[in-house]
Amino acid sequence: MPLRGTKVVDLTRILAGPFCTMLLADMGADVVKIETPGRGDPVRRQGAGREGLSWYFAAFNRNKRSLAMDLRAPAGKQALARLIEQADVLVENFRPGVLARMGFDDDRLKELNPRLVVCAISGFGSTGPYVDRPAFDFIAQAMSGFMAVNGAEGQPPMRAAPPIADMVAGLYAAFGIVAALNSRAATGMGQRVESSLVNGLISTLAYLPAELFATGREPRRHGNDHTVVAPYGLFRASDASVAIAPSNEEIYERLMKALDLAHLMADPRFIDNASRMANRDALHGAIGERIAMQSAAHWISYLNAAGVPCGPVLGLAEVFEDPQVRAQEMVLDIPHPGHGTVRMTGFPVKLSATPCQVRHPAPDLGAHTQEVLSEWGFSDDDIAGLQKAGAI
Amino acid sequence: MPLRGTKVVDLTRILAGPFCTMLLADMGADVVKIETPGRGDPVRRQGAGREGLSWYFAAFNRNKRSLAMDLRAPAGKQALARLIEQADVLVENFRPGVLARMGFDDDRLKELNPRLVVCAISGFGSTGPYVDRPAFDFIAQAMSGFMAVNGAEGQPPMRAAPPIADMVAGLYAAFGIVAALNSRAATGMGQRVESSLVNGLISTLAYLPAELFATGREPRRHGNDHTVVAPYGLFRASDASVAIAPSNEEIYERLMKALDLAHLMADPRFIDNASRMANRDALHGAIGERIAMQSAAHWISYLNAAGVPCGPVLGLAEVFEDPQVRAQEMVLDIPHPGHGTVRMTGFPVKLSATPCQVRHPAPDLGAHTQEVLSEWGFSDDDIAGLQKAGAI
Repeated sequence: MPLRGTKVVDLTRILAGPFCTMLLADMGADVVKIETPGRGDPVRRQGAGREGLSWYFAAFNRNKRSLAMDLRAPAGKQALARLIEQADVLVENFRPGVLARMGFDDDRLKELNPRLVVCAISGFGSTGPYVDRPAFDFIAQAMSGFMAVNGAEGQPPMRAAPPIADMVAGLYAAFGIVAALNSRAATGMGQRVESSLVNGLISTLAYLPAELFATGREPRRHGNDHTVVAPYGLFRASDASVAIAPSNEEIYERLMKALDLAHLMADPRFIDNASRMANRDALHGAIGERIAMQSAAHWISYLNAAGVPCGPVLGLAEVFEDPQVRAQEMVLDIPHPGHGTVRMTGFPVKLSATPCQVRHPAPDLGAHTQEVLSEWGFSDDDIAGLQKAGAI
Repeated sequence: MPLRGTKVVDLTRILAGPFCTMLLADMGADVVKIETPGRGDPVRRQGAGREGLSWYFAAFNRNKRSLAMDLRAPAGKQALARLIEQADVLVENFRPGVLARMGFDDDRLKELNPRLVVCAISGFGSTGPYVDRPAFDFIAQAMSGFMAVNGAEGQPPMRAAPPIADMVAGLYAAFGIVAALNSRAATGMGQRVESSLVNGLISTLAYLPAELFATGREPRRHGNDHTVVAPYGLFRASDASVAIAPSNEEIYERLMKALDLAHLMADPRFIDNASRMANRDALHGAIGERIAMQSAAHWISYLNAAGVPCGPVLGLAEVFEDPQVRAQEMVLDIPHPGHGTVRMTGFPVKLSATPCQVRHPAPDLGAHTQEVLSEWGFSDDDIAGLQKAGAI
């Protein structure tokens, strides 16, 4: 596996950080999740679950081991220093400055282990006026511009339903860590990697900032209409909605021919994309009339065969029964000793030679405390000392 | 830089693929963008621009070089084979099967270069019943479940305004490529990396699939309300909306105390998160009354100081003037010879020792055809032959 042998000390909790370390663990990294004894990651107590196990926690902590250790206790801090000396990667999503106040500022980390890749995931980054603010996905969605453009015209700004700022920040962090490991292979030196909720989400705004920068015009909310392309959107078939997205002139022509609307292509209202944008309602009306005449299944089959991107709007239950999603193994059923079989989403990146796999389910709190400490060179006496000090 | 010396043959166009190769180029990879002579990437002609340059294109193709070559011409195919022999990475976002039909199936690629990491970005992955369907961000949003949960209650399913499926797929691809390069350092062998719009977006649904899987209940659209946490949302201050997101009990208590609503904490309607979810309207009403009494700026300052995540809803123009976003260098002004200075978004991942940088602006079509071919070992005679054959 690509990250086999990569030792990760994981101080993260909630979502962005654990998602990052899950991506590393899925690629084979040895991720040791350090949790507060008796409490652990708050996500252990969040969301729906069965038999005392949060399935949300289970989904984002697969392939990790749990070491329960009190990092406020001096003995815990000392043990953490020993782990850091041996680690390849440290990942944390505390507020900026918290890790330093725990005794592990950049200088100390470098002194303990100059090869260490240190990754910090935060709301706003580690410099700037908002550095001390608490952060959360929803706030990042609001402050990145995402909410301002998301949603329907005339309606309030709308967040993305999933915590997309968390997910994107976690994914960028994983990318940055692997890039830094690549760099280390050449230089022998670790470095600091930073990912933030706001920066990550800004970078996913795609062409919207370019529109603002080039024209000075603020992109608006316009629901399912595209900013720069028409036609495009949801159309009501006789029984359900279908999403239709002709992305360029060629596909637009295919759509109009397939709908027997080729005569409109010479209509001055629709002669080019700019005209179509200006007369979007009329064009969507003409297309909508045709779509209403047949079922969604008909159009999805017929338009895809004609080379026009088209699909249904699927609810989550339908998504995970979809034959394509099943063929892509995006649903995993993982035996979870003591908790039955837990269903979760699969691996979004497919590697042919070294595929991701679930090597073990999400850990019970502290399940690997002794095992990990022994493996990382703590003697039985060391471990007993940590127990006596109340650190584990 | 982490990917310095990594040679990338980039056959991608539009967004997901070029975003992936931009992430690699920003990390120092030598990305050669191969484009159709006379036309190039369709994004060159999309979106707003100035002086003949699409700022959308400029933003997603920085740090790359352009080689204009006709891959349908036999001489172009032969030249591509020579480039592949020397490359570390090949990235493509054709429909599955297209590259093979061009003469470059997996066996041929392996024969040409067993060390090559081949990355394919597609709509649905390379196996399964929908493999031949054309894909597009909007369709992936519809078919991943994202649209079904996104948007307001009682309103139609709503896409994310930015093309989030494209962006996530590109980011996963970049992560997978660097992981595969890491694997290659150990094994000496390349492999195939696949990322898809639908799989990527499914993986960002976070806790929503876990809710479905654990309870059998389909997550619904509920606008800015959180699926499993209350209070949470947009509240109207005296002059503007503020986003408030107390993510756990501790922060909920901070919020209620800060709003002088501590007496409600013992109210049986709000005694725990489940009760608060059941009485969300009443709780949001009580909080809303307080928030309406002061300005947004007051609450943002006051609640953040109290440790409650809180922020304004910023429009894009405000985002890019925001002192935090500026401090994080998320706005770049890049001199673009012949096109003035182009503004674009910055680097979401910050590396301390080997930071991302703009080494050169997005290329004019074919600007580096001769330069790249010479560098990659093509003689003047070879290049003249390609010209004569009409391949470049």
